[in-house]
Amino acid sequence: MTNSLIHQIKTAGKREPADLVIKNGQVVNVFTRRITTADIAITDGMIVGLGAYEGKKVFDAAGQFVVPGLIDGHVHIESSLLPPHEFAKVSLLHGVTTVVTDPHEIANVAGVTGIQYMIDDAQKVPMNIFTMLPSSVPVTAFETSGASLAAEDLVSFMADEHVLGLAEVMNYQAVAHTEKEIIDKIVGIKAAGGVVDGHAAGISPDELAVYATAGIRTDHEAVNLDEALARLELGFYLMIREGTVAKDLHALLPVANETTARRCLFVTDDKLIDDLLEEGSIDHCLRLAIKQGLDPLLAIQMATLNAAECFELRTIGAIAPGYQADFFLTDDLTTLAATDVFVKGQQVVAEGQLQEQLFPTASSNPHLKKLPSMNALPLTQDSFSLPLKSTQVKVIEIIPNSLITNQLIETVTLEKGSFSPSIKEDLLKIAVVERHRQTGNIGLGIVKGFQLQHGALATSVSHDSHNIVVVGTNDADMLFAVERLLQTGGGIIAVRDQKELACLPLAIGGLMSQLGYQETFESLKRLNAAAEKLGANPHFDPYLTLSFLTLSVIPELKLTDMGLFTFSTFSLTSVET
Amino acid sequence: MTNSLIHQIKTAGKREPADLVIKNGQVVNVFTRRITTADIAITDGMIVGLGAYEGKKVFDAAGQFVVPGLIDGHVHIESSLLPPHEFAKVSLLHGVTTVVTDPHEIANVAGVTGIQYMIDDAQKVPMNIFTMLPSSVPVTAFETSGASLAAEDLVSFMADEHVLGLAEVMNYQAVAHTEKEIIDKIVGIKAAGGVVDGHAAGISPDELAVYATAGIRTDHEAVNLDEALARLELGFYLMIREGTVAKDLHALLPVANETTARRCLFVTDDKLIDDLLEEGSIDHCLRLAIKQGLDPLLAIQMATLNAAECFELRTIGAIAPGYQADFFLTDDLTTLAATDVFVKGQQVVAEGQLQEQLFPTASSNPHLKKLPSMNALPLTQDSFSLPLKSTQVKVIEIIPNSLITNQLIETVTLEKGSFSPSIKEDLLKIAVVERHRQTGNIGLGIVKGFQLQHGALATSVSHDSHNIVVVGTNDADMLFAVERLLQTGGGIIAVRDQKELACLPLAIGGLMSQLGYQETFESLKRLNAAAEKLGANPHFDPYLTLSFLTLSVIPELKLTDMGLFTFSTFSLTSVET
Repeated sequence: MTNSLIHQIKTAGKREPADLVIKNGQVVNVFTRRITTADIAITDGMIVGLGAYEGKKVFDAAGQFVVPGLIDGHVHIESSLLPPHEFAKVSLLHGVTTVVTDPHEIANVAGVTGIQYMIDDAQKVPMNIFTMLPSSVPVTAFETSGASLAAEDLVSFMADEHVLGLAEVMNYQAVAHTEKEIIDKIVGIKAAGGVVDGHAAGISPDELAVYATAGIRTDHEAVNLDEALARLELGFYLMIREGTVAKDLHALLPVANETTARRCLFVTDDKLIDDLLEEGSIDHCLRLAIKQGLDPLLAIQMATLNAAECFELRTIGAIAPGYQADFFLTDDLTTLAATDVFVKGQQVVAEGQLQEQLFPTASSNPHLKKLPSMNALPLTQDSFSLPLKSTQVKVIEIIPNSLITNQLIETVTLEKGSFSPSIKEDLLKIAVVERHRQTGNIGLGIVKGFQLQHGALATSVSHDSHNIVVVGTNDADMLFAVERLLQTGGGIIAVRDQKELACLPLAIGGLMSQLGYQETFESLKRLNAAAEKLGANPHFDPYLTLSFLTLSVIPELKLTDMGLFTFSTFSLTSVET
Repeated sequence: MTNSLIHQIKTAGKREPADLVIKNGQVVNVFTRRITTADIAITDGMIVGLGAYEGKKVFDAAGQFVVPGLIDGHVHIESSLLPPHEFAKVSLLHGVTTVVTDPHEIANVAGVTGIQYMIDDAQKVPMNIFTMLPSSVPVTAFETSGASLAAEDLVSFMADEHVLGLAEVMNYQAVAHTEKEIIDKIVGIKAAGGVVDGHAAGISPDELAVYATAGIRTDHEAVNLDEALARLELGFYLMIREGTVAKDLHALLPVANETTARRCLFVTDDKLIDDLLEEGSIDHCLRLAIKQGLDPLLAIQMATLNAAECFELRTIGAIAPGYQADFFLTDDLTTLAATDVFVKGQQVVAEGQLQEQLFPTASSNPHLKKLPSMNALPLTQDSFSLPLKSTQVKVIEIIPNSLITNQLIETVTLEKGSFSPSIKEDLLKIAVVERHRQTGNIGLGIVKGFQLQHGALATSVSHDSHNIVVVGTNDADMLFAVERLLQTGGGIIAVRDQKELACLPLAIGGLMSQLGYQETFESLKRLNAAAEKLGANPHFDPYLTLSFLTLSVIPELKLTDMGLFTFSTFSLTSVET
């Protein structure tokens, strides 16, 4: 550290040439929100000067804008379906050089081994990947997860400088009732110097005060202006989320003005590979925000300096001496397409081309083999039979592109005393098959909104315990789909007439693909085409929507391997009314 | 920690009453810069709610504004002439509940013992006193100090949660030339999680880049708009200083606007007890700023949230759940006179009256006796004789109310080959008598600006090594003054015709008074009256000005115990041209 600092200072003082100088750039200054023409001098991956400098290497920015690398303040990498080293590639192509990630998904499957796998994979990647420790594994007592993490499991990770604190505390009731497990985690992580993220879905100002008292300082679950303002007023950092399913930017953006923006930042939370590749990551948030009228420099400040301040990242988030040389070049500040991207002074994208040789391969991670695979009891023909005592039932109604569902009361048809799906009424069967501990649990329910005309869709990505969730028009296709996923070690599948139409294996914990990002993307396209063939509602992503129908910490009616779950009473419930 | 947090959460959730509720206040929200009417619920000294709450005790704010306690981002407590527990009283009366202090003065006298004395004294006081560790003891090799502090001496203090980092790094050349001592300090403190303050007097943007590269992130030495903007552009926090001598607020304030203000805060740096009592501390900065046109809520935000963010103080600087209950009540947001002041929920000022019983006495500090006293060789009649080889001399010219001096070339009169002061020309003699190590060093020079007609003024407060500095119209009074201070263990004195006109003993390290703040203030008034009688220039404080004529890290001509010192060549120089 000392020798490198001495080297940096000498080049800052122009007593030695810098390693690299970016010349002829229009540098975006996020402190003053001005654009200045200055050389950027870089040594040992750090910026050492902004002015006129000479370097051993010179990169000609040719009048392009030089923008600090964007920061995603909260993302579950697993939700992209890619492991960190492939996720990083896609992010970097979009100018995102730093992410704060919560390996909540893999932790629910594989506990500390899963977290360690993610951290180790991330460390080999030319990108800043910081970790927040999953606070809620398992997320509730009403589902079966692959692991259970206690405070001491989490605190042991805090020695790693890339681990920043405790991720989204999502069980409001547990905090409010000072349950020992969550209090121990909060106290332990704070004592170790960490910060604590919140997850305050649907929470009132008075309840927010409970969270704030506990030391929780961020939230990414606000969905309207009132909620956004309430969070800012109580000192929360407002994470404006724009992911694949949850799209809150349009509603929340008006809260960000000259006064409040400093505590606003952007996050993707959960975003699939296809959306990341096609529309982008935080750069997409910026484009949306700018289109909605936000000053581009204010938007960039939110996505860089503000996010860095939120996590007390002292050397990230700006182009200035003493900061890491993380930035991207772009021709204009409205579309923000990144042509060249640098991380710690290393060019990772050149003229739009990723420098693939800088990235590790999946097989190089020693923790990969330690990750558990599928561990379910065998299924039978009757596994998905849903006997009902009455025809009046609770139905999960999908709200397109939202994590929230409605509870409907519908009248259904029975066949031999069991629920019979109705394609006409769009009342399909949904099941969650436990896959971690051979409990044999299968939760069953009825869902409206998918509009499938044939077959079944299944995925081993199902928040947050990631059992296998399947929706179908008939039991035989549902059975085929789940059994196929048990064979492949997890994945996403579309089935018709007991034949596989498309399948993406997700052999890394049943969550992430071992393929490259491009191949994974192609597989997903085939899956989407297959879903279309099955008649799936084209207005939302059926697989991702399916994967959130199991998320019990979000209103209203959900399904876990233990059965139907009502958020408002926070308890399991019967299908019959 | 856990039990207290559980207690706080229970009261936040209204399951138990809060310890204290402030009702009927107009609460200043520094996150949104809005004023809201809300109860403030407090438990265990922390705010747990903002809304409608019940408490075991209720305090009726009766419509007054409730403002977060103000923060002084950089102050040398010793410069008030008071030890921390008396300084705190004066600060609290002005709504200042948090200071970030650099015990640089006592450290130059007493090293680690001095720092420990200050920390221990501070801990007993109902105020938030955070310490930055003196980076420059001794400040240069061109003066004799009482101690020398190495990196390991400093790093050992970082275990204390009230120690935040490394204080004002002031030797630019040492940083730029990567001298081992300062690099070790910076690296050591950063590795321990600390922040690093700067002191970038007269430093150009290119030189600032060197500081920034080293990890220095604040500066309080900007004196004009260009300098202020250069600091903000490079990511420095701009500390806008308004002290007793250095008054930069008027010149710097225009740089603070909606965009830049978030990285601006106020500091006093060095402010005497009389000014603190009479005009105030950071509250005075706010009044000046508001008078100059700054929005009061933006000004308050700078003095609270921004200062807290600068030092990553997560639970200070706002009135919100999870923050310390530090605030004051005031009738209007323009004059900001504090009627009632709370620190950690404890009322320390009630209706303008300090709650004296909450404060410790000077004698209760075990480190007090360990502090060194005067340690100088005896003086003689000839001690202040200044033989000159020529009548053409360099003269220190005072710039009123500035730390900077000019170098003048003047022709002087000799008497028996030695300099003879001229009252008419205002060319007086100045001497610095070494008092730490019995070196016998006496630096001698000529000064213009005091306008003394008789006698001598002397002080054992003389930045930064705090030898005894004396200015006089004749050697006999100068000798009397210095000998008297050696007897009293240090202090400030005015002498005429070898008689003491007034004297304030500063027996705590020769820097701080053992009297209460009120008595110290009265002594100082007597000293000022005495200076007036001696004909001193009424446009500036003669004692304080005297105490900065020894500060070699500020331009241009200064005097140390080793002799005359030129800043621009950073070397000792002769009096003769």
